[in-house]
Amino acid sequence: MSSQQAVLPNKKEDFSQWYNTLVKKADLIEDSAVRGCMVFKPYGFALWERIQKVLDEAFKRTGHQNAYFPLFIPLSYLSKEAGHVEGFAKESAIVTHYRLRKRADGKIVPDPTAALEEPLVVRPTSETIIWHTYSKWIQSYRDLPLLLNQWANVVRWEMRTRPFLRTAEILWQEGHTAHATAQEAQTHARKMHDLYTDFITQYLAIPHIQGEKSAHERFAGALNTYTMEALMQDGKALQLGTSHFLGQNFSKSFDVRFSDQQGKLQYAWGTSWGVTTRLIGALIMTHSDQKGLLLPPKIAPYQVVIIPLYKKNSPEKKDILTYAENLQKKLQAHNIRTQLDTHDTQSPGWKFTAYELKGIPLRLVIGPRDLAQKQVEVTRRDTQEKESIPQENIVATVQQMLDTIQQNMYSKALAFQESHTTQVDDYEDFKATLNQDIPGFISAHWDGTTETEKKIQEETKATIRCLPQDVSPERATCIYSGKPSTQRVLFAKAY
Amino acid sequence: MSSQQAVLPNKKEDFSQWYNTLVKKADLIEDSAVRGCMVFKPYGFALWERIQKVLDEAFKRTGHQNAYFPLFIPLSYLSKEAGHVEGFAKESAIVTHYRLRKRADGKIVPDPTAALEEPLVVRPTSETIIWHTYSKWIQSYRDLPLLLNQWANVVRWEMRTRPFLRTAEILWQEGHTAHATAQEAQTHARKMHDLYTDFITQYLAIPHIQGEKSAHERFAGALNTYTMEALMQDGKALQLGTSHFLGQNFSKSFDVRFSDQQGKLQYAWGTSWGVTTRLIGALIMTHSDQKGLLLPPKIAPYQVVIIPLYKKNSPEKKDILTYAENLQKKLQAHNIRTQLDTHDTQSPGWKFTAYELKGIPLRLVIGPRDLAQKQVEVTRRDTQEKESIPQENIVATVQQMLDTIQQNMYSKALAFQESHTTQVDDYEDFKATLNQDIPGFISAHWDGTTETEKKIQEETKATIRCLPQDVSPERATCIYSGKPSTQRVLFAKAY
Repeated sequence: MSSQQAVLPNKKEDFSQWYNTLVKKADLIEDSAVRGCMVFKPYGFALWERIQKVLDEAFKRTGHQNAYFPLFIPLSYLSKEAGHVEGFAKESAIVTHYRLRKRADGKIVPDPTAALEEPLVVRPTSETIIWHTYSKWIQSYRDLPLLLNQWANVVRWEMRTRPFLRTAEILWQEGHTAHATAQEAQTHARKMHDLYTDFITQYLAIPHIQGEKSAHERFAGALNTYTMEALMQDGKALQLGTSHFLGQNFSKSFDVRFSDQQGKLQYAWGTSWGVTTRLIGALIMTHSDQKGLLLPPKIAPYQVVIIPLYKKNSPEKKDILTYAENLQKKLQAHNIRTQLDTHDTQSPGWKFTAYELKGIPLRLVIGPRDLAQKQVEVTRRDTQEKESIPQENIVATVQQMLDTIQQNMYSKALAFQESHTTQVDDYEDFKATLNQDIPGFISAHWDGTTETEKKIQEETKATIRCLPQDVSPERATCIYSGKPSTQRVLFAKAY
Repeated sequence: MSSQQAVLPNKKEDFSQWYNTLVKKADLIEDSAVRGCMVFKPYGFALWERIQKVLDEAFKRTGHQNAYFPLFIPLSYLSKEAGHVEGFAKESAIVTHYRLRKRADGKIVPDPTAALEEPLVVRPTSETIIWHTYSKWIQSYRDLPLLLNQWANVVRWEMRTRPFLRTAEILWQEGHTAHATAQEAQTHARKMHDLYTDFITQYLAIPHIQGEKSAHERFAGALNTYTMEALMQDGKALQLGTSHFLGQNFSKSFDVRFSDQQGKLQYAWGTSWGVTTRLIGALIMTHSDQKGLLLPPKIAPYQVVIIPLYKKNSPEKKDILTYAENLQKKLQAHNIRTQLDTHDTQSPGWKFTAYELKGIPLRLVIGPRDLAQKQVEVTRRDTQEKESIPQENIVATVQQMLDTIQQNMYSKALAFQESHTTQVDDYEDFKATLNQDIPGFISAHWDGTTETEKKIQEETKATIRCLPQDVSPERATCIYSGKPSTQRVLFAKAY
């Protein structure tokens, strides 16, 4: 599993090729034998584990509990919510048999005598099976709110796949809550939206726009879909995650009623919200460079790598190794995730390149001179700045530098987003902006109709990413139809 | 989701009914709409999360990393290892279509134009897809050992299901390692076997017998299967988990070769090992009683429940609540998992019964007199012993009592196992022992043939649970065939 060292494709010339090569060379993920299904290698999965740990604690802190619902959904359930089945029917994996048998020619095939009476859908999302279950759990207002989450795999049979962003099997979390009132559910959907935004800003250092999806881009079965939209370095937008206010759509489809404080039967109000390993893709496409990954310190599986430098069989080897081991212990004792590379088989230059490729925020090198002068050479992955730090200051300095890198990465990405957001008032300008090398976000007026939205998409491939929540109302006209508009919305070409 | 209070079926008269009722009433798990698939309710899933946390740390401490491999396995892969496909073909869920469509009659059905060229098997276990991947990762002895684990769901289409023990969808972990030598792989399989035993003994307090499976009971594709076998309170055995030495079976089927230190190509040696949510079933059937669950403190999601006692609107209510909240904070500050129940709607008696049902090891009650005398009334779930403890000693006393309960539970279960293990030297005695109310483990001589093993099973339903690792060799004769035998083996009726 050693990373093969080779130059990455030019990021500016072929972003897509750069990305696909990088995720493989950095040992994050690779294709499997099953179309669209990926193998998460240990380093890629460690990133997901970091994300899981931080989010799981945040969910629990806000009163959620984890549960687990079945992988399979009866076909009839999926059909119960009309919009929902429309949304997922075209991309579902379907189990039809429960046994294999050997044919006369020796080939192993599904056993025709073991066909399921009702085929099962591998869950594309779990609203239907969960709301079916909630109908048994919710009887009284005392059972509400019901705040559950699950970490799970779901399947959507995507025809065009891309590592982390769009795969057939998806690792994610899905929260599903039920509430007594519309307002409480609405508030909860927004609260989770904000929780995601805090996490993505503070841990992943990804600036993004919070807003609401248009009716056309809404989740199949939701009344409101709140989204976080980020701008990747190629000027395309990426949806980071969504939180939905489901109204009573699923409670009505699955008959989830409770008696309120007055003893009157009411349908419950729902939310659902999720993020996937797509966040890892966003991390890479926001921060990484021509040398490889660049991981924000707060999410990096390793924040520091220590590389001891010595000549083979040299007299100082033992002392340098001891110095390095002590340094690792010291940093680890302060909860700094530190790796020590004592392999003899690769050259220091090879190692430097390998850890740059893996995006470890700080490289600490200890050679004979550092040993003699009781210092450590520290190099930042983001700026490549090098400094010699006295040993006694190392913990405080490393902590400070990790904070600085985290902030620097966010600022740099924010500057990129801001410099690639264009306010446009004319359809020709709109199209010209989209034709730039890095098209970016476009803020423009729209008449609010799906018809216009679809026409713009057909003609330009740009979609409405969201109706941003922090824009002031303006009276103006739609760039496409000339009809009245009250608010600028955010357009972009998107993943 | 409130637990309905009602008497459990009599454990001695109908153990199976007692178990099935208990897992539902204690809010652990329930049936879903899909046959054999279960819904893990928050309390049941919290138990699994505790198990995951402790084991995951143990795996990482012993050099393993987590990774993630696809849910689906191409049919042709499953067929590559002959024994393996034999073992799993009869119980596999098979995906044959990737799209739904609406028929003319409005019914939603698998789209006949979207049939997969090669059907996909929902993984029953992942050796095949993982060893296929290892063939790309392992080239040199430097790539070994490769020590990976994944937490995943697998599917085996069981016809008779039982909560936690035997379900269609199974939550588990599966470790898959590759090594340069047979000896190293053998040692690793035994090491993981011992790691499981330590965990099950120290955390779950379940005494058990370590040993090796007979050829007939071995994992499909393994050379050796090491197993942990425990005795449930109804005298039936339960396999707790297994660790397999795979030899070169999968490396040869998937062409996983590495060049050794001499530059010679060698096939890698493998192990795999797993435990499932079955451990939760074992926990229940080992320790629980007529009042409900009894959870060992080291694995219990909540170790302590605090119940304040006061009359509604009484003057001391505020002080008692403050006292209880401070107590909770104090215990939590010492990492004691503590729940505080301040609900006004249920009576104390109702609450006592509910938390006994949920198996929380210690109940702390605070009433007006406790407040006045600065004490707490502590009741042990295992013995029902009640004591008043001065407030200033509470943390130390609780810690000590939790340790005592943990040890007491293990000792009690061990005494049960020992008193229900019978040494038998005659087939008539063997059958008579199996006909007792609580048949238990039977230690008897066997001639080592699958033929005899199968005959004994047909006639008595008892199977060889394992060839225990800690028995002394003896020269004697098989209880069934009279042929020579060198070691007693462990028989039992089993789940």
